[in-house]
Amino acid sequence: MDSKAIAILGGTGDQGLGLALRFAKAGRPVVIGSRKLERAQAAAEEVRQAVAGAHVEGLDNADAVRRAPIVILSVPFEHTAATVKAVRDNLAPEQILVSMGVPLATAVGDAAVRTVGVWQGSCAELVAALAPDGVEVVSAFQNVSAHRLRELEHPVECDVVVSGSPGPRKLVMALCALVPGLRAVDGGPLGNARFVEGITALLIGLNVRYKVPEGVGIRFTGLPSA
Amino acid sequence: MDSKAIAILGGTGDQGLGLALRFAKAGRPVVIGSRKLERAQAAAEEVRQAVAGAHVEGLDNADAVRRAPIVILSVPFEHTAATVKAVRDNLAPEQILVSMGVPLATAVGDAAVRTVGVWQGSCAELVAALAPDGVEVVSAFQNVSAHRLRELEHPVECDVVVSGSPGPRKLVMALCALVPGLRAVDGGPLGNARFVEGITALLIGLNVRYKVPEGVGIRFTGLPSA
Repeated sequence: MDSKAIAILGGTGDQGLGLALRFAKAGRPVVIGSRKLERAQAAAEEVRQAVAGAHVEGLDNADAVRRAPIVILSVPFEHTAATVKAVRDNLAPEQILVSMGVPLATAVGDAAVRTVGVWQGSCAELVAALAPDGVEVVSAFQNVSAHRLRELEHPVECDVVVSGSPGPRKLVMALCALVPGLRAVDGGPLGNARFVEGITALLIGLNVRYKVPEGVGIRFTGLPSA
Repeated sequence: MDSKAIAILGGTGDQGLGLALRFAKAGRPVVIGSRKLERAQAAAEEVRQAVAGAHVEGLDNADAVRRAPIVILSVPFEHTAATVKAVRDNLAPEQILVSMGVPLATAVGDAAVRTVGVWQGSCAELVAALAPDGVEVVSAFQNVSAHRLRELEHPVECDVVVSGSPGPRKLVMALCALVPGLRAVDGGPLGNARFVEGITALLIGLNVRYKVPEGVGIRFTGLPSA
């Protein structure tokens, strides 16, 4: 396992591929996971085309998680539980599993401007409930626009609220510094993902009402300078 | 009823008094309501001391609501239902009732960094369920720092998400322009208060973790200029 590598499950989707492009551009080895090996490989090729010298490979999800200390889950909410269950036997203690999912009501055929209730409180807490003992779950990246991630020549003007246990949280906060314009904000314990996931649905509504297909982001004002 | 007046129930509390000061400074007549007349009168006097020429009076809540087309509810969550019930007979159709409450878990003796679930979905929707027919409920101002509102010489760097029916929502959005630094953001239907109220608890946690007693605020990035 390469200690610098970052695995992204669902890295063929808009937001996952956006992160893959950004992390590859920052020089980090990236492993794209998908349920289908061919799709993962095609996404990896897309990153190589876009980022000269990118170290990226495409694997199926179960293999991808063996390759990086930090594994980002970037799958639609309705596939979250199945994906964690499919890879859990391959996760080892001290690996970090990053939940960026949001329980959008699209999961039940309703609209993305609303959410469904999750028994555990949030997508991130659902992931934590399913993750093997010793695997640390951290919540991050929900509110980052896929479109803006993929515009590699522009910074992404957005704060990323990172929630989870202090040590793993700090490691995920450090990832934000790899993407120009992203700022990590200490979101405290994992349960705060409840608030952060809701912001995504609010932002999706703002994208519609204000006609901003590139995606609205958030910033927190009044924080001390880093 | 003065069409320019703004009534603030619970206007003796930190955030309500902060809004009273700002609206008075902007030249609008302000009516401060409280459960206790003397406290309302004392708060009105405080505004007059701080803002030269302020038109402000203190009344008990039930009288205050008769005096302004827009009535802002600025009471702790646990007093919300009782306050609406106490004034509802004095509210008339087409008046606008603004909910700025948040169901912080302090209502049940837990901490302000967490929330309690509200059957109707949010404090604002609870208010709407209790308001008389024809009264329009709008959600706004939850995320504005009381401390920063009261620093009259400084702008308040914060966006205000305003949710409710389109007409009343627009009228409440216009109030934000009275306070330097506040920007109104169209928050769509009232149910979106669920997301907005959660942001307050998140901000309270950020105030603690980052040691910002003055209060952290939010801005949305990528919105078109007004």
